[in-house]
Amino acid sequence: MELNELTNASGEWLRGAGPESDIVISSRIRLARNLADFPFLSRATEADRAAIEQILQDTISKLIEEKKLDPNTLYIKVGDIDQLDRMFLVERQLISRELADATGARSVVIDPQERYSVMINEEDHVRLQVMQSGLNLQAAWEQVNRLDDLIEEHVVYAFSDRLGYLTACPTNVGTGIRVSVMLHLPALVITRQIEKVFKSLQKISLAVRGLYGEGSQAMGDFYQISNQITLGLTEEELIAKVADIVPVLIDYERQARDFLIRESHETLHDRVSRAFGILRTAQTISSEETMHLLSSVRMGLNLGLISDLQIPTINKLFVHTQPAHLQKLAGNDLDSAARNIERATYLRRHLDGNKPNGPTQN
Amino acid sequence: MELNELTNASGEWLRGAGPESDIVISSRIRLARNLADFPFLSRATEADRAAIEQILQDTISKLIEEKKLDPNTLYIKVGDIDQLDRMFLVERQLISRELADATGARSVVIDPQERYSVMINEEDHVRLQVMQSGLNLQAAWEQVNRLDDLIEEHVVYAFSDRLGYLTACPTNVGTGIRVSVMLHLPALVITRQIEKVFKSLQKISLAVRGLYGEGSQAMGDFYQISNQITLGLTEEELIAKVADIVPVLIDYERQARDFLIRESHETLHDRVSRAFGILRTAQTISSEETMHLLSSVRMGLNLGLISDLQIPTINKLFVHTQPAHLQKLAGNDLDSAARNIERATYLRRHLDGNKPNGPTQN
Repeated sequence: MELNELTNASGEWLRGAGPESDIVISSRIRLARNLADFPFLSRATEADRAAIEQILQDTISKLIEEKKLDPNTLYIKVGDIDQLDRMFLVERQLISRELADATGARSVVIDPQERYSVMINEEDHVRLQVMQSGLNLQAAWEQVNRLDDLIEEHVVYAFSDRLGYLTACPTNVGTGIRVSVMLHLPALVITRQIEKVFKSLQKISLAVRGLYGEGSQAMGDFYQISNQITLGLTEEELIAKVADIVPVLIDYERQARDFLIRESHETLHDRVSRAFGILRTAQTISSEETMHLLSSVRMGLNLGLISDLQIPTINKLFVHTQPAHLQKLAGNDLDSAARNIERATYLRRHLDGNKPNGPTQN
Repeated sequence: MELNELTNASGEWLRGAGPESDIVISSRIRLARNLADFPFLSRATEADRAAIEQILQDTISKLIEEKKLDPNTLYIKVGDIDQLDRMFLVERQLISRELADATGARSVVIDPQERYSVMINEEDHVRLQVMQSGLNLQAAWEQVNRLDDLIEEHVVYAFSDRLGYLTACPTNVGTGIRVSVMLHLPALVITRQIEKVFKSLQKISLAVRGLYGEGSQAMGDFYQISNQITLGLTEEELIAKVADIVPVLIDYERQARDFLIRESHETLHDRVSRAFGILRTAQTISSEETMHLLSSVRMGLNLGLISDLQIPTINKLFVHTQPAHLQKLAGNDLDSAARNIERATYLRRHLDGNKPNGPTQN
């Protein structure tokens, strides 16, 4: 399978299915692992990095040969692809911005259905992540655990009986797990309750981030909730910590939506309907405005204020209108002004209400 | 003919036809006249007002009997109709806000095609106005002149050989004529040239007003250009003064449009397209925003950036979305919030692009 075959695809986390998918976009679990025989990357030589990369490439090849991984699994040396493809993978949440921007030997293993990816030589030697559409942490945990075991059949991880898995950053030591749930919380934003909610989450050691992880702005009212510590609790306990709070957040968001529907139905309907109108008629539009408007449309769709459109279409538009996706879809490099025009064209084509099944097709 | 029969109609000045109708909405000529046998209204008693009103009502009746006026001519005692109907006539430009808000005996004569109206007991005893769609001052002049002669067959006007027609306000003494052309100048507004243009007009004694005359804001980029003095020049000279400057203004506006199309085509297309999108999807919208958006759409239509819509539809929407029209069309009194919802509903119904001939129908 080629990287370009992913361009028009959608991937697991954009499916818009799974439990609570009106509010929960995806559930993600990532494990940080390091090979016992090599120093952490901060102290590794170029030769170390290359050796680590080679060992893991061999491991993936063996797992494919053993029919334990899909034969269409992608193995991409991130240094060998161009900047546009790297940004494409970041937008798709298959690699981190850090892996994209790093130097030296580094790779990513990608499941053809985009249910998982493995970053090699990011902050740790190995970072496995599994994504599930909707609220489905248990399934994500089972899958990442299986993937972890498969790799461990071929390599020896750095592990301390006292501390657990050893990682480059002390915050990951222990289980090396990060449990994240991506939520769409537009009504909490509109009713100005979001800050209060986040402060409560921080008090119980949960982190809140934007769509593209650490340091990224919350665009389109998407927020990632994840555990901040990995030490002193088992994986199951850490998963439960996130899993227990998500229904509370879902309930808050639903209450805020009910409030808006009840107390300012026309204003909400107006916001949603205009957002849809602008997305279908703009001739030039920025990524930021697109996210903002799509967020309103997504909520409106879930509240029955808009029909004739599917959630997976909206989820896909959030990602496909990002700069690298747009350029991959257009087939050439575009400057910012040209991207804004291309984005508007793309949106009009995909949101044209006249085509009965148009919106879900490319 | 009943007043209510006008509700769904459009009237001459909304026809969107006539020369230069992409920029010139209408040409209007008004004459101020007073009866020689009565004092000006500022000094008239209630009995005087009633007598003046009766004389002119009789005059109109005779002209209808003599088949010199259409038998469907409306004669409305403004004090006898309710506030909503008065505002309706103001929005339709058939009476002034002053006549609507005055007290005592006062009337309006309305041509069934709305080509002319005669206000009785406004600032002067008689004010005749003729409207023509597009740039057509000569036709307006011929019609108002004929109407003036018809009335003069039955009454004696206050006239001084030295000064000409005598009027309540010295600025109208002489010919009593006001020559107005209503222009749609969105590109001069966008390119911030409009103020400069108006300053030049003031230097040559031309007045600039908004859509609803003296003191009204320029809404929807509509501007009325008219003469400021009536003394010392003949009617023909005063008409020429306005008629000569209008082609210059049209040329400025066309140049500004060409500039926008050439230098910022995407931005202009985006503005027009979004305006159309919002008008077709808003669930609640103010009169001010409606005028603003319709102005963009009207320009876009004239520049070929929008199709599937007719200028008369847009002209009509400008007027039919005004508060009194909306309430007349809805058939009941509505508060501001309810009007904003009704307005949005009305706009969506009339701008739905799916109906091939929908937009021009009611």
